[in-house]
Amino acid sequence: MTETRFHVTGIGNAIVDVLSHADDALLAELGLDKGIMTLVDSEQAQKIYSRMGPAIECSGGSAANTIAGIASLGGKAAYIGKVADDQLGEVFRHDIRAAGVTFETSPGGDGAPTARCLILVTPDAQRTMQTFLGACVELGPEDIDEELVAASSVTYLEGYLWDPPQAKEAFLKAARVSHDAGRMVSLSLSDPFCVDRHRDSFLELVNEHVDILFANEAELKALYRTDDFDAALRLVRGHAQVTAVTRGEKGSVIIAGDDVHVVSAEHVPAIIDTTGAGDLYAAGFLYGYTHGRALPECGRLGGIAAAEIISHFGARPETDLIELISAKV
Amino acid sequence: MTETRFHVTGIGNAIVDVLSHADDALLAELGLDKGIMTLVDSEQAQKIYSRMGPAIECSGGSAANTIAGIASLGGKAAYIGKVADDQLGEVFRHDIRAAGVTFETSPGGDGAPTARCLILVTPDAQRTMQTFLGACVELGPEDIDEELVAASSVTYLEGYLWDPPQAKEAFLKAARVSHDAGRMVSLSLSDPFCVDRHRDSFLELVNEHVDILFANEAELKALYRTDDFDAALRLVRGHAQVTAVTRGEKGSVIIAGDDVHVVSAEHVPAIIDTTGAGDLYAAGFLYGYTHGRALPECGRLGGIAAAEIISHFGARPETDLIELISAKV
Repeated sequence: MTETRFHVTGIGNAIVDVLSHADDALLAELGLDKGIMTLVDSEQAQKIYSRMGPAIECSGGSAANTIAGIASLGGKAAYIGKVADDQLGEVFRHDIRAAGVTFETSPGGDGAPTARCLILVTPDAQRTMQTFLGACVELGPEDIDEELVAASSVTYLEGYLWDPPQAKEAFLKAARVSHDAGRMVSLSLSDPFCVDRHRDSFLELVNEHVDILFANEAELKALYRTDDFDAALRLVRGHAQVTAVTRGEKGSVIIAGDDVHVVSAEHVPAIIDTTGAGDLYAAGFLYGYTHGRALPECGRLGGIAAAEIISHFGARPETDLIELISAKV
Repeated sequence: MTETRFHVTGIGNAIVDVLSHADDALLAELGLDKGIMTLVDSEQAQKIYSRMGPAIECSGGSAANTIAGIASLGGKAAYIGKVADDQLGEVFRHDIRAAGVTFETSPGGDGAPTARCLILVTPDAQRTMQTFLGACVELGPEDIDEELVAASSVTYLEGYLWDPPQAKEAFLKAARVSHDAGRMVSLSLSDPFCVDRHRDSFLELVNEHVDILFANEAELKALYRTDDFDAALRLVRGHAQVTAVTRGEKGSVIIAGDDVHVVSAEHVPAIIDTTGAGDLYAAGFLYGYTHGRALPECGRLGGIAAAEIISHFGARPETDLIELISAKV
């Protein structure tokens, strides 16, 4: 086996978040569905942005948040994703590298700007996201660094990566390289609407390529078109080796073969912004998994990282997660 | 007199802040002087940025922060400043307009990017700022909208505006237009090193053009090259009609002719980041002044706005300042 240089390599849409507070009236006026991610074109993004309040910009992207979280925990992490050669691309590149992540994907060259996600955070701490994919649509198989993937214990993919057209090929290549090197492949289903858009692909992936699956209840139910959570759990059991299902304040459930582990949620004094909760759960979980921790412990680490991220504005850690976890575990 | 359409129009360097946590060791390693603003060229900015941790971007600029604060208090406010036609310029334009400020200055066209200020916030809440002026150097007299200035009760200038070469002419033009229209001119000295760089110009301004002066203790002493605060107060007394001197936790002192008003500081439970404290003091003060409040009340409003801004990360208000002030005053 190739020498292990990374605990986790993530592949995802490289996005800069534009975060602003908003009230329910603004969501209604703009016709936005609360709590979900919608893809928008450049024109729609401009229209929504022009109605948003003063914002802050910070690097985001689902898998990128996870990978930054793993680095923040002290894990060795790398990222593959496509920015443009522009100011927001420079911001994304700086932030992920400054978090300690290896990031070498070449920037896109066809003129599409770096992707952004307009995030409206309502007083109930829900985030409503409008994503303009920009340069992300240029990510393709040629961007998969085979040596990097082969040297990573886990290759982690966000479901959102199915939205740009060529990225599926990129991920299938990465999955093949990873498995050929005796490594593991992990997928996060991202959101129920993303599952609806790509159900057949996701089912094929989960059945054939995914060793560690992350989903929340709604996503798992959407994958199997059922309203019955237990039925969905039965259906996933035979496929991925490990499935971690997040359930918000109810914690998480981890399924591995015939084993079921129920993990309580961490206490969060005040939930400010749920952006990044699932991403950071995956970060804590994969950090634990690639450091040989037992599955319930992996779930607990996921819960601690998720609790940190929802207690402030933004989806990258503010607290030194290493300190947080050594204080709690 | 022209109809009053704005309480305050601000003129300043239009800057996007890049904020990151840092420790004292990093400041020492980069050779940065804690707590002050230093001008850097593009290359130095790149070098420092490459060493900074993950950052957030948000609109800044001293006078722009003041003007956004006045709008947040419910005042009618306008801004004149130069961004480039690039992504960070779009961020700046969006944020100040979204705060309710009129901003119509045309973007620069000679290729210099929008200015940025790299801000390293240490655990003691001090901010150390490295500013790359970029497109700000293009601001000139042609950017002063005479109708706008003539329709503003107060035209407010940041001292930092003396750093780019043509901006002095722009401000002198604005001061002339303002006074010709029977309006008032206000200046903030910005920082002691800025005063050192431009002492003669500032003395001439204060003696001949400035009606309302904002300074902190160090800036006022630097202006008159004295270590004696009382001597500095005596020297300024004969010039500006009103001088408001901020003194951190000691509150502020307001000098108007023979009157001296001492205003206590607001209580701040935890100081997180002092970026913007002086800017928001000026916002509260000028809001009060242009709404006919007595000077001690103006100082108190300044203190409340400053207290809000130092209790979180970043230099634009997070709390609705109207609510904050109606709850306290």
